[in-house]
Amino acid sequence: MTAPAGPEPSPGILAVDSGGSGLRVALGTVERGALGRRSSTVPVRTGARGIDPGHLMDQLVPMVRALATETGVTRPTSAVVGAAGLGTLGDALRADLPGALAREFGVRATALAADAVTAYTGALGSRPGAVVVAGTGLIAIGTDLRAWRRADGWGHLLGDCGGGAWIGRAGLEAALRAHDGRPGGSTPLLTCAEEQFGPLPGLPARLYPRPDRPAVLASFAPRVAACAASDPVAAGILRAAARHMADSATAVCPADGEPQVAVTGGLFKIGKPLLVPLEEELARRLPYARRVAADGDPLDGAVRLATDLAKDVLTLPGDEMMLYVVKGAP
Amino acid sequence: MTAPAGPEPSPGILAVDSGGSGLRVALGTVERGALGRRSSTVPVRTGARGIDPGHLMDQLVPMVRALATETGVTRPTSAVVGAAGLGTLGDALRADLPGALAREFGVRATALAADAVTAYTGALGSRPGAVVVAGTGLIAIGTDLRAWRRADGWGHLLGDCGGGAWIGRAGLEAALRAHDGRPGGSTPLLTCAEEQFGPLPGLPARLYPRPDRPAVLASFAPRVAACAASDPVAAGILRAAARHMADSATAVCPADGEPQVAVTGGLFKIGKPLLVPLEEELARRLPYARRVAADGDPLDGAVRLATDLAKDVLTLPGDEMMLYVVKGAP
Repeated sequence: MTAPAGPEPSPGILAVDSGGSGLRVALGTVERGALGRRSSTVPVRTGARGIDPGHLMDQLVPMVRALATETGVTRPTSAVVGAAGLGTLGDALRADLPGALAREFGVRATALAADAVTAYTGALGSRPGAVVVAGTGLIAIGTDLRAWRRADGWGHLLGDCGGGAWIGRAGLEAALRAHDGRPGGSTPLLTCAEEQFGPLPGLPARLYPRPDRPAVLASFAPRVAACAASDPVAAGILRAAARHMADSATAVCPADGEPQVAVTGGLFKIGKPLLVPLEEELARRLPYARRVAADGDPLDGAVRLATDLAKDVLTLPGDEMMLYVVKGAP
Repeated sequence: MTAPAGPEPSPGILAVDSGGSGLRVALGTVERGALGRRSSTVPVRTGARGIDPGHLMDQLVPMVRALATETGVTRPTSAVVGAAGLGTLGDALRADLPGALAREFGVRATALAADAVTAYTGALGSRPGAVVVAGTGLIAIGTDLRAWRRADGWGHLLGDCGGGAWIGRAGLEAALRAHDGRPGGSTPLLTCAEEQFGPLPGLPARLYPRPDRPAVLASFAPRVAACAASDPVAAGILRAAARHMADSATAVCPADGEPQVAVTGGLFKIGKPLLVPLEEELARRLPYARRVAADGDPLDGAVRLATDLAKDVLTLPGDEMMLYVVKGAP
């Protein structure tokens, strides 16, 4: 009679969040969750084939090796890669990444998720509902667990209504109205804009040549929030942003059942001047939905998805553009 | 006794309109106005020193030579160069162009004018009032003959409210609202947008990488106008554009006297759907001003300025950023 074998080791999981500010990686196990995290500030390149899977792997391999040493997790069973732009720029990722992860790390099941999906899962897990994701841009994503719905996320020239660039741009427009003597202007925002950007006649020449125009616009959003307590124009901009957010949340929220609604993303750091009107607008537009705090961030969402994938209990709807699952060696 | 000399020949005049779509040039005389016109589709380069006077002269010299042969005007006494960006990008022009025109053509008096000033003068001559100039962008300019006032003209991210890019962008945003199921959407504009740009999920990838984003947005403005008769969302966008135009006109219009108000620029080709609400808004906001048709275009404005300069009767206010006059050999 042989001694009983030890407990089967818990399957390893690999979670990746790839976005405009770089790559974040977590390695862990189904039982214990993320055991180690690493990040890089180099965004994965986008080339003629879209997001470049080779550049992603070049960064990922040394990070995962280091995490394997640190955590003892040497062979993740499942991997989830959340990527900004998966829908429109993800063809090469879908074609190459599951195979590369299998060869390099022995991964047996891979899911590629839109960044909105990892944000959703980080906030609500696999419960039905709607999540507003707001940073420089803005997108709302929702699911009834049968299909995904998205609203906005069209970028700073076509939408992203209520996001950071939208708020900052509206604030600068109000500053320039005051400068010109047009109605709807705000002298407090004019003062703030001059503090931040210098004399306003020079602002166009400083803004338009930059490649990061949306981020420059979004950098003014905290000033708009700071003015809102005493300036009705600034308060009106944040109220309008809250309405746009509620519009988008309502467009994607399941119409029946008991959906949950959460918000997530860096924009909400500006706090009460935005959150107070937002709570009012959400309560008015989605009275049947339960407002909850986000459980975690997009990397937490990828960890959750990888855990469900390893346990074969992933209940969120698959969709080539939103949540693309490949099981078995490709 | 000698035969009496013939009448003194009328002084020659040179007029130039330099903008984003190229260079337009007229040569003529004080007495007879423009006798010949030439145009180039190569915009004058902007470099580290701003608008490049050398590149402008490189294009101008052969055009003026050809016009001299055609018109018999060999030595213009006065020259007016209207240039987009004179205020912020005109340092090198102010420094070099009067001397270059004197050396090359024997010009004795030069005025450099902001493109808004040539548009104003083309529309109203040297009468006091306000002019709304609308193409892809939008600026209002006014004068009481003592100083110039400007409103808006801040570009597509900071203002240009009511201009072509503004209208087109608002139309595309309404199309995408309909696509997403958000409120405020327009199904007719969605149909138009898909006809013009193809399936809308591909629009961000087609728009954002282009250098001429404002022009792409403005190219949708005629569709918004075409929908306005039957679509209240499109009509609302044009009404809002008209309000913005009236805001800007009001900000620059002299508050007393008998100012005249005109509109000029390519956007007004979209016609009644914009002009009908605009007349209403202008009548409401500026009841004491007389609404007149624009006499001519910016090149006509430069011809008028050059004529007044040659006759030494220029009454419009000088201003380094708006109308910069250099007399005598520099």
